Amino acid sequence: MPIDPTAVGNSGGPQDRSWTSKDCLLYSLGVGAGIDELNFSTEKNQEVLPTFAVIIGGGGVPFNKIGSFNPAMLVHGEQAIEVYRPIPAEGTLRSTGRVAAIWDKGEGKAAVVVMESESVNAETNEPLFKTTMSAFLRGEGGFGGERGPSAPKTNVPDRAPDHVVSYDTRPDQALTYRLSGDRNPLHSDPEFAKMAGFDRPILHGLCTYGFTGRALLHAICDGQVDRFKSMSVRFSKPVMPGDTLTISMWIDGNEAAFQTRTQNDVVVIDHGKFTFA
Amino acid sequence: MPIDPTAVGNSGGPQDRSWTSKDCLLYSLGVGAGIDELNFSTEKNQEVLPTFAVIIGGGGVPFNKIGSFNPAMLVHGEQAIEVYRPIPAEGTLRSTGRVAAIWDKGEGKAAVVVMESESVNAETNEPLFKTTMSAFLRGEGGFGGERGPSAPKTNVPDRAPDHVVSYDTRPDQALTYRLSGDRNPLHSDPEFAKMAGFDRPILHGLCTYGFTGRALLHAICDGQVDRFKSMSVRFSKPVMPGDTLTISMWIDGNEAAFQTRTQNDVVVIDHGKFTFA
Repeated sequence: MPIDPTAVGNSGGPQDRSWTSKDCLLYSLGVGAGIDELNFSTEKNQEVLPTFAVIIGGGGVPFNKIGSFNPAMLVHGEQAIEVYRPIPAEGTLRSTGRVAAIWDKGEGKAAVVVMESESVNAETNEPLFKTTMSAFLRGEGGFGGERGPSAPKTNVPDRAPDHVVSYDTRPDQALTYRLSGDRNPLHSDPEFAKMAGFDRPILHGLCTYGFTGRALLHAICDGQVDRFKSMSVRFSKPVMPGDTLTISMWIDGNEAAFQTRTQNDVVVIDHGKFTFA
Repeated sequence: MPIDPTAVGNSGGPQDRSWTSKDCLLYSLGVGAGIDELNFSTEKNQEVLPTFAVIIGGGGVPFNKIGSFNPAMLVHGEQAIEVYRPIPAEGTLRSTGRVAAIWDKGEGKAAVVVMESESVNAETNEPLFKTTMSAFLRGEGGFGGERGPSAPKTNVPDRAPDHVVSYDTRPDQALTYRLSGDRNPLHSDPEFAKMAGFDRPILHGLCTYGFTGRALLHAICDGQVDRFKSMSVRFSKPVMPGDTLTISMWIDGNEAAFQTRTQNDVVVIDHGKFTFA
């Protein structure tokens, strides 16, 4: 059975998930928050990085309703979060998901599946955040669906950025990051990575997402998590553990466009859009 | 009530403790095992660093039977492990402890309490390892006990070492290491560290112990955990996160003397004694 475009609108969940203060600390270390961000990396006056939403959120998405595909051909294409309030350092949430869109990029090309998930605090029912992810299912195009919208080549204005922040990742960055949950051996096992066509294990896209989120939080929101409202990206190229990530930001009112590049000037996150208070 | 030297021989426990594969991986990252030691830092063909014994072992020691003391004045003076078989990547152990010795270093000086703990696999009853720790209780001397043995100034022979291994620690090393259990703010909170008389948070002695154990394992045992038999040390000076640790080893049959120094040539682990097969 190929991809079924009529699955759009199907929902899943509710799915509950609990997390602890330690989970938040481990995530913070995984995305590079260290001794200069002790409110995120230790339990003293602990706060939670807004991008931690991608770890505990996303539940209830009904992948089982979109037809069959080869999970090894799935590529994480885009990721967005909308954060309604600061994430508590521990708690339980309840997530419901839905298939937001399915696009057909053509025979021999990809099917694109857009999944949304809304999470509320399971104890108080307060909305916490929404996560949206686009999965590229390589080779699954050609099922007779619509092509979907095309994005402009870039969303970055033709002027110097307002903020530029650089962070080094470490050669063992993926080993720490993966303990937050994504144990895909593509990010840790050299043999597996070679079979997948890479010289060595690549960094998790969502790890780059976390580094980029820290840059936005500190450069634009002065580190105040309640000012961090939403962040959407397209993953454009793989990052290698040990790469230096440079995040450039262009402010426009309460929005910012941003891009993340490596030390080789390769754009690894594109179409970045950030909103803040 | 001061320290009670008649507490020697008192026992405690049994105390059970379970651990998971993830606990072992987090510990490995905390003591610097990264992409060159994937059998310790990922779950593929996972093995466990022998020094992980200090994390899951030590249970059942009857600190409540030695009299009263100020825990803030406790300094970890010495640590030893004897490892009877490779530690499984997950399991449950059962520990029993005893007060092995109490020494009196004199009025205004320290009481030294030596605690031993034996751990067996709770499912099979097989002996796993023994841990021995000496705690210096500063200011608790003068209770009328024996002074105890004096160690020679050093156990290192007057010749060039047989092996020298250097590892960098990271500025955020203690933040990762502490997630293995020891959340003492001396290792993370700059204000707390200042009150304790340090410029900034210091590294856990047992983190330095873990780095040193990795050096012994790789240089002497070719990375084979079943050849790692015992490792005892004295902690002589604090280590700062970010320091480079250089471990020098002098082989004598199936034993080795070792020392760990920082980049400033300060000896931070002395009286190191290692046995191997």
